Amino acid sequence: MKGIVVTPGKVGAVIKDIEEPGPLKPHQVLLKTLYTGICGTDRGIVTNMLGFVRPPPDAQELVLGHEGLAEVLEVGDEVSGLRPGDMVVPMVRRPGGCLQCSIGRQDNCEDGDFVEAGIRGLNGFMRERFADEEQYLIKVEDKSLGRLAVLTEPLKNVVKAYEVYTTLAKRFGVLCKDSTYGCKSVTVAGMGPIGMLFAMIFATNEFNVRAFDIHDTRGTAAGIAKQVGFEFFTVDGMPEDIMKSDVFVDATGNPGVVGSALNGVKRNGFVILFGTSSGGEYKLTGELVTQLVEKNTTVFGSVDGAKEHYLEALNYISMWRDMFPHALDMLITDEDKPEGAITNLIKKPQGEIKRVIRWG
Amino acid sequence: MKGIVVTPGKVGAVIKDIEEPGPLKPHQVLLKTLYTGICGTDRGIVTNMLGFVRPPPDAQELVLGHEGLAEVLEVGDEVSGLRPGDMVVPMVRRPGGCLQCSIGRQDNCEDGDFVEAGIRGLNGFMRERFADEEQYLIKVEDKSLGRLAVLTEPLKNVVKAYEVYTTLAKRFGVLCKDSTYGCKSVTVAGMGPIGMLFAMIFATNEFNVRAFDIHDTRGTAAGIAKQVGFEFFTVDGMPEDIMKSDVFVDATGNPGVVGSALNGVKRNGFVILFGTSSGGEYKLTGELVTQLVEKNTTVFGSVDGAKEHYLEALNYISMWRDMFPHALDMLITDEDKPEGAITNLIKKPQGEIKRVIRWG
Amino acid sequence: MKGIVVTPGKVGAVIKDIEEPGPLKPHQVLLKTLYTGICGTDRGIVTNMLGFVRPPPDAQELVLGHEGLAEVLEVGDEVSGLRPGDMVVPMVRRPGGCLQCSIGRQDNCEDGDFVEAGIRGLNGFMRERFADEEQYLIKVEDKSLGRLAVLTEPLKNVVKAYEVYTTLAKRFGVLCKDSTYGCKSVTVAGMGPIGMLFAMIFATNEFNVRAFDIHDTRGTAAGIAKQVGFEFFTVDGMPEDIMKSDVFVDATGNPGVVGSALNGVKRNGFVILFGTSSGGEYKLTGELVTQLVEKNTTVFGSVDGAKEHYLEALNYISMWRDMFPHALDMLITDEDKPEGAITNLIKKPQGEIKRVIRWG
Amino acid sequence: MKGIVVTPGKVGAVIKDIEEPGPLKPHQVLLKTLYTGICGTDRGIVTNMLGFVRPPPDAQELVLGHEGLAEVLEVGDEVSGLRPGDMVVPMVRRPGGCLQCSIGRQDNCEDGDFVEAGIRGLNGFMRERFADEEQYLIKVEDKSLGRLAVLTEPLKNVVKAYEVYTTLAKRFGVLCKDSTYGCKSVTVAGMGPIGMLFAMIFATNEFNVRAFDIHDTRGTAAGIAKQVGFEFFTVDGMPEDIMKSDVFVDATGNPGVVGSALNGVKRNGFVILFGTSSGGEYKLTGELVTQLVEKNTTVFGSVDGAKEHYLEALNYISMWRDMFPHALDMLITDEDKPEGAITNLIKKPQGEIKRVIRWG
Repeated sequence: MKGIVVTPGKVGAVIKDIEEPGPLKPHQVLLKTLYTGICGTDRGIVTNMLGFVRPPPDAQELVLGHEGLAEVLEVGDEVSGLRPGDMVVPMVRRPGGCLQCSIGRQDNCEDGDFVEAGIRGLNGFMRERFADEEQYLIKVEDKSLGRLAVLTEPLKNVVKAYEVYTTLAKRFGVLCKDSTYGCKSVTVAGMGPIGMLFAMIFATNEFNVRAFDIHDTRGTAAGIAKQVGFEFFTVDGMPEDIMKSDVFVDATGNPGVVGSALNGVKRNGFVILFGTSSGGEYKLTGELVTQLVEKNTTVFGSVDGAKEHYLEALNYISMWRDMFPHALDMLITDEDKPEGAITNLIKKPQGEIKRVIRWG
Repeated sequence: MKGIVVTPGKVGAVIKDIEEPGPLKPHQVLLKTLYTGICGTDRGIVTNMLGFVRPPPDAQELVLGHEGLAEVLEVGDEVSGLRPGDMVVPMVRRPGGCLQCSIGRQDNCEDGDFVEAGIRGLNGFMRERFADEEQYLIKVEDKSLGRLAVLTEPLKNVVKAYEVYTTLAKRFGVLCKDSTYGCKSVTVAGMGPIGMLFAMIFATNEFNVRAFDIHDTRGTAAGIAKQVGFEFFTVDGMPEDIMKSDVFVDATGNPGVVGSALNGVKRNGFVILFGTSSGGEYKLTGELVTQLVEKNTTVFGSVDGAKEHYLEALNYISMWRDMFPHALDMLITDEDKPEGAITNLIKKPQGEIKRVIRWG
Repeated sequence: MKGIVVTPGKVGAVIKDIEEPGPLKPHQVLLKTLYTGICGTDRGIVTNMLGFVRPPPDAQELVLGHEGLAEVLEVGDEVSGLRPGDMVVPMVRRPGGCLQCSIGRQDNCEDGDFVEAGIRGLNGFMRERFADEEQYLIKVEDKSLGRLAVLTEPLKNVVKAYEVYTTLAKRFGVLCKDSTYGCKSVTVAGMGPIGMLFAMIFATNEFNVRAFDIHDTRGTAAGIAKQVGFEFFTVDGMPEDIMKSDVFVDATGNPGVVGSALNGVKRNGFVILFGTSSGGEYKLTGELVTQLVEKNTTVFGSVDGAKEHYLEALNYISMWRDMFPHALDMLITDEDKPEGAITNLIKKPQGEIKRVIRWG
Repeated sequence: MKGIVVTPGKVGAVIKDIEEPGPLKPHQVLLKTLYTGICGTDRGIVTNMLGFVRPPPDAQELVLGHEGLAEVLEVGDEVSGLRPGDMVVPMVRRPGGCLQCSIGRQDNCEDGDFVEAGIRGLNGFMRERFADEEQYLIKVEDKSLGRLAVLTEPLKNVVKAYEVYTTLAKRFGVLCKDSTYGCKSVTVAGMGPIGMLFAMIFATNEFNVRAFDIHDTRGTAAGIAKQVGFEFFTVDGMPEDIMKSDVFVDATGNPGVVGSALNGVKRNGFVILFGTSSGGEYKLTGELVTQLVEKNTTVFGSVDGAKEHYLEALNYISMWRDMFPHALDMLITDEDKPEGAITNLIKKPQGEIKRVIRWG
């Protein structure tokens, strides 16, 4: 069977013939891959920019892919909640032995002793078939979601970060006089799939959302913004006060953007860090530290998400499909066959928001 | 009567004859000042380093002093909870009209429309007598606390920041396997009164606390640390891993310290910003931003405190007086008469932790 | 224009010609009623069983109806968020002067000084047209929801109660080992619209839900249960352990059911009280009190909901319309014209879950 | 050595010669008992009124005593935090295998699979010496607390219940306009040690506390109330509105008292159940259920406490010793030698609040 494979430490990815999954263990499920998504991390792996990538133990190569959607082919003897024909999203990160991992929160792993499918220590989902433990498979109850369900994995990151925000916001007890979030403004920087999903989750929870990106080649960001009901700007046309909001979401990883947000955010404001990058810098001054104190600012990073966030992500997908019938479909801008994906794994083509690979 | 007075916009403070408080309004209380504390903000005002200082409306001069302890001399007709002879701590910040102010949380004021006694728009407590509204006076039930009660004001800042920490820490659900904070480490940078009180509050809530400062001229910090049960280091003798803790408290405002803390803090860690300063800088890089994301880091500023925090501060003072009979007394390293305070308001003498002025 | 009118203190309701709304004030909106729902409270009013019903000041009669859906005909000069043609759900309860009311939480009013449209002190929505303040109107962004949006009002009660549950459940820190609610069981007593919506909200948040009612004349409850994915039983066919769950929702108000739930609920369990009634009784014994202590039981009542819950209710309606295309439509079992509603307002016909009135 | 021993299933307790603890295991500590407290549960065991009492596996007899204070005599090889001469309070409940037990919250055990020293499945502390695991021993840092530290165990129950209250109270977001609890009233029923400690914890957190009991033979309750600053009434002299409070704490277990509290508690009120009993009953009616709904009432039971609550209890003891120098000493009304305790274990003598036994 085919799989897309990298060699950690080297640049490039190849599609090649790889081993079929072995005989099923009692808690395992045999799966046929339907779709996989491509994200910045995949490109970081393929271009060998990420230090933490590693193959499974005793291997040199790593099967790529952590955004997956698959169909159940066969179930082990002790699998109770899945049957052939079911559609599932596999979880990326698998727990180690720390306290957070022991309560299902490997997204908050305390010691780094976890593995991540397609990233570190575990083969990923860019292959025709694979076997996995039932406990790491999220059932997609509504199969009519089709390829939209491949958005579950990126969206679960956003659902977690949003939940962390609502938890941290309790430091202020009450947010708006009418009990809603309607008086609060959000700015999202970076309109890749993650930034887009952040804009959507805040907008459907009644925040006033503005978002920006460097450009919008195909006009997709503007189109989705219109449907969902938020404002989109390219950097050239941004209002001057775009950094002055109650919540700032950075989906760029750019220190300059983060620094401007720290400066611009309102009293009692929040800066959510999700983007990662390797370049750039910003001068953190004593004046800025003083401002963060005087303004009761909260800044937080958030990575990955737990099983509960995968499940909630599926709920959001259903909700959005009903509310904005075309928005999620527009967000998946490109679809490749496995063979066609290789070149697109090296460099993000212009205008892409989310690219997926269709298997079989 | 005597008062210590500054002219915002100019360097220096003078002790001079000022006006007695006018006739009492129904909700007002006439007070005789017992003690006032001196803090970095006072010195910032006197040396004209702080941009936000302003006199009361229609005045040029400002009576200094926001850390106060006073005795009730007389009460207005509609005062119900105070009687002559009672001991009180007056609140610093007074509310404006925003939502947070309307629920008693002017420490979280949303629009900056507040006044602060001795700092902006309202005369302070460094004068022999003053009148104030009952609602802004915290009764000290136990008069035997004496001058220790002047620590209520700085401590309320620490109590608030600690409460914010415990609220934000809920993003991780569970902290240690035995239900306590005993597995968590805290590093405090800066052993002025605020840093010292942070070390004390974390230590008495079972965290493992380490603290450091540039030096410890009189050995007071080391002495208190020993009594309270935390570790103190001067920067020369610091362990290499001092920045690697679960919680880092910055009471210096130094961007270099803050930057090192952001780099060093453990997974799921917190950096608490309380210190303010005008100098220094630190390079915020893409690598650091990425780390904050990957490590689920939370950074927050916290300023001032609400009435509830003043009350809780008094509870901590009682608790600590019983637990560490000498620690709080040691923390008040110096006591001046009003006349003697003027020179010490310009420059912090070596070895001082908290200096107070005794009135009358 | 037509309206359905009661005289508080007397049995019966009439449809009659009533006054048109007066000239619009600047913050008001003129509305054309599309649908109103009928619930148990309406029948309690019509049969004069509820002590708290009262007409508007200086009136003898009260226009009935608190579950509404309307179309904007015209807006006042200072209305900024609504335009003619928009679809809205009007809020039932309007604030008094207490602290909770001042933060938009009149659902948690502390002193009872509120009014409720169609119930106490304010005319309701069972009339062809009415004028209302913009701030009490919830915009239905997706007009394609049609009459389903009339479920917003009852659902907002359920959304609030569910949110209260999740807040109170924090007393246990962690619920299931996999971070979800998947290990928790819920029993819902009473399959009227409220019980049905409780079953739906718990089921879509991954709880294992069982529900029961005395009977299910038309089989609607069983049909919806099958679609949504919970178990439904009539009392004759209930499993013996139906009372042994982690969460028990009482939508009956029957003290016998509540008492059995208090007895049956598991350790760390919750009993949610939403149903109200005037009859029945249950012996609260010392043994039962002891059990509630030993088992860390939480029992709570919840009434009404805030603006945030109306908004979230609309999100759930969209989500459910996508997930279970027919379930909500099945829940609206009956639709009357205003004239036809009068007899059905006296007595609930067999097999009804939610009955609505179509206006115009 | 001497120990006080019961035979579960039979009435009575004897003091007799029992076996010395065996050789120390690496994580164990050899302890010399200083004080043990006597509480209602002990009397329930001695009079054979409690169904759940059981001896250790393979034993017929049970050493009584779960409120202990002891001195370290010797430590095992792997004990790191205790040394001979240290003073400790041993924990009562020891974990089983459920999720709550695995995070140090055996007080919230989900399946009942725990043991409790002196109550079920584990010998207690009413003996001259015993060995215990370091992890279940709470170090008393301040040895000057002396016998007051024996109050740690009952107080940890109260600390937990108070913490649960503050968690559940978040359902209302904001409590008083000035950010404190000063606008809230509390009524405590039953002035045994638990009720007394509840009154103290609420009073020192700024609530307005009233408390009542059937009588106050020696005037101790009135004396402590005066010092601490709450109001005490005997049932004959109670104000009519004593049941109308924001928080009601039942420390009686009497269904009549609980029922009156459910009826009387204000809107948004809380009823805390801690007392247990075997007699009495109260009619739970439909009207009362309706009230609990309409008034957003919360009722909760709370049992035991976790390690964090033992530690916080010690903090409260220090705080109270400083604030109310005689109150805690007055609360320990009686002190017996082991031999003298036997008759007092059968029946509570009049006027007793807390009785302790002094060992060695």
